[in-house]
Amino acid sequence: MKKVAVILSGCGVFDGSEIHESVLVLLALDRANAQAICVAPDIPQFHTVNHYTKQPVKGETRNVLVESARIARGNIIPLHQLNVNDIDAVILPGGFGAAKNLSNFAVAEENFTVHPEVEKILKDAHNKGKPIGFVCIAPAIAARLFGKENVEFTIGTDKQTAVVLSKYGAQHVNCTVHNAVVDRKLKIVTTPAYMLASRITEAEAGINKLVQAILEMA
Amino acid sequence: MKKVAVILSGCGVFDGSEIHESVLVLLALDRANAQAICVAPDIPQFHTVNHYTKQPVKGETRNVLVESARIARGNIIPLHQLNVNDIDAVILPGGFGAAKNLSNFAVAEENFTVHPEVEKILKDAHNKGKPIGFVCIAPAIAARLFGKENVEFTIGTDKQTAVVLSKYGAQHVNCTVHNAVVDRKLKIVTTPAYMLASRITEAEAGINKLVQAILEMA
Repeated sequence: MKKVAVILSGCGVFDGSEIHESVLVLLALDRANAQAICVAPDIPQFHTVNHYTKQPVKGETRNVLVESARIARGNIIPLHQLNVNDIDAVILPGGFGAAKNLSNFAVAEENFTVHPEVEKILKDAHNKGKPIGFVCIAPAIAARLFGKENVEFTIGTDKQTAVVLSKYGAQHVNCTVHNAVVDRKLKIVTTPAYMLASRITEAEAGINKLVQAILEMA
Repeated sequence: MKKVAVILSGCGVFDGSEIHESVLVLLALDRANAQAICVAPDIPQFHTVNHYTKQPVKGETRNVLVESARIARGNIIPLHQLNVNDIDAVILPGGFGAAKNLSNFAVAEENFTVHPEVEKILKDAHNKGKPIGFVCIAPAIAARLFGKENVEFTIGTDKQTAVVLSKYGAQHVNCTVHNAVVDRKLKIVTTPAYMLASRITEAEAGINKLVQAILEMA
């Protein structure tokens, strides 16, 4: 049974992991009889967003690991406890958590950095030939870390974001919501999901292709 | 396009809606080209549970509508604004929120009551012949409200809980995780999902059958 680390970034599209994307990744892995190992960094969220009003909540602090545990039904481990030798692949669902908690792309844009724990596990996995999948806005992290290797990636059709991320050497490929971009040389797979999806079955189509490609290469 | 109200109860299995079940309901509805209308009562949660430690958090109050909005990606309306004439059916995902926020079954057991807003919409929908689906532990609410009509329902194979709920006149039917119990006379459908599921594809199987039966009768 292949083991796939799913790196979560909170619980909710505006300040954490996009919930539909996360569950669709878990569903596709389970259908393929692969084991998901949910992990998240044990760090404070960048902020908390009221998802009804869509406004940030002043003075409320939530923890990325603790909120991610909601998606994982409590079955989660801190990212720093994950041993890369125990897994065959890694997948990062999207949501603003990927750009606010796992990295600071939402705030720093072209000068952004990836959280050191996330950078370490992704570089270790990559250096050991393990495939990595990035959903929605999470491919920004792929561009940042693997741009020097000219990774092919997609964030859909958002030209402005693509131009910013191309500065790292990464090559953006336009992609429809039903597809995924597979860089077979680097074993990096990306799909737009809710960068483009107007309904959950659209996100599902691309995520299923991403998971299939990841498991083929794992 | 059939319109189905999905009544959420927060965001997370231990204090709100079970996230996988909620997303699987939304996915099955979208596959069938039905429109989901997410709703939740605008009330405080019974409590907040840290899903990593699985312990209640003292002094932290969260709102059912605001947390449910995470699952709905912000596309949600307060339950009291829902007009029963605008919908063809209702579905309640599970999670402890159904037994702590939408009702107090988790606390009061055989003397439990259903939140008045939830009771009103469900009785109105039922009286107008609209089918209602209940997932996981949410069927307790079906037993409470429709026990006088001897509703057939399932919460899986949990004999103790079944006995408690039978006191209202409801008839418990043992059901495997891959199936749903359909009371065609009352148009009430129930499935065990994570009352029994050990993996997400098991929950999906029963939820797909529930959604199919609901849409057939709607």
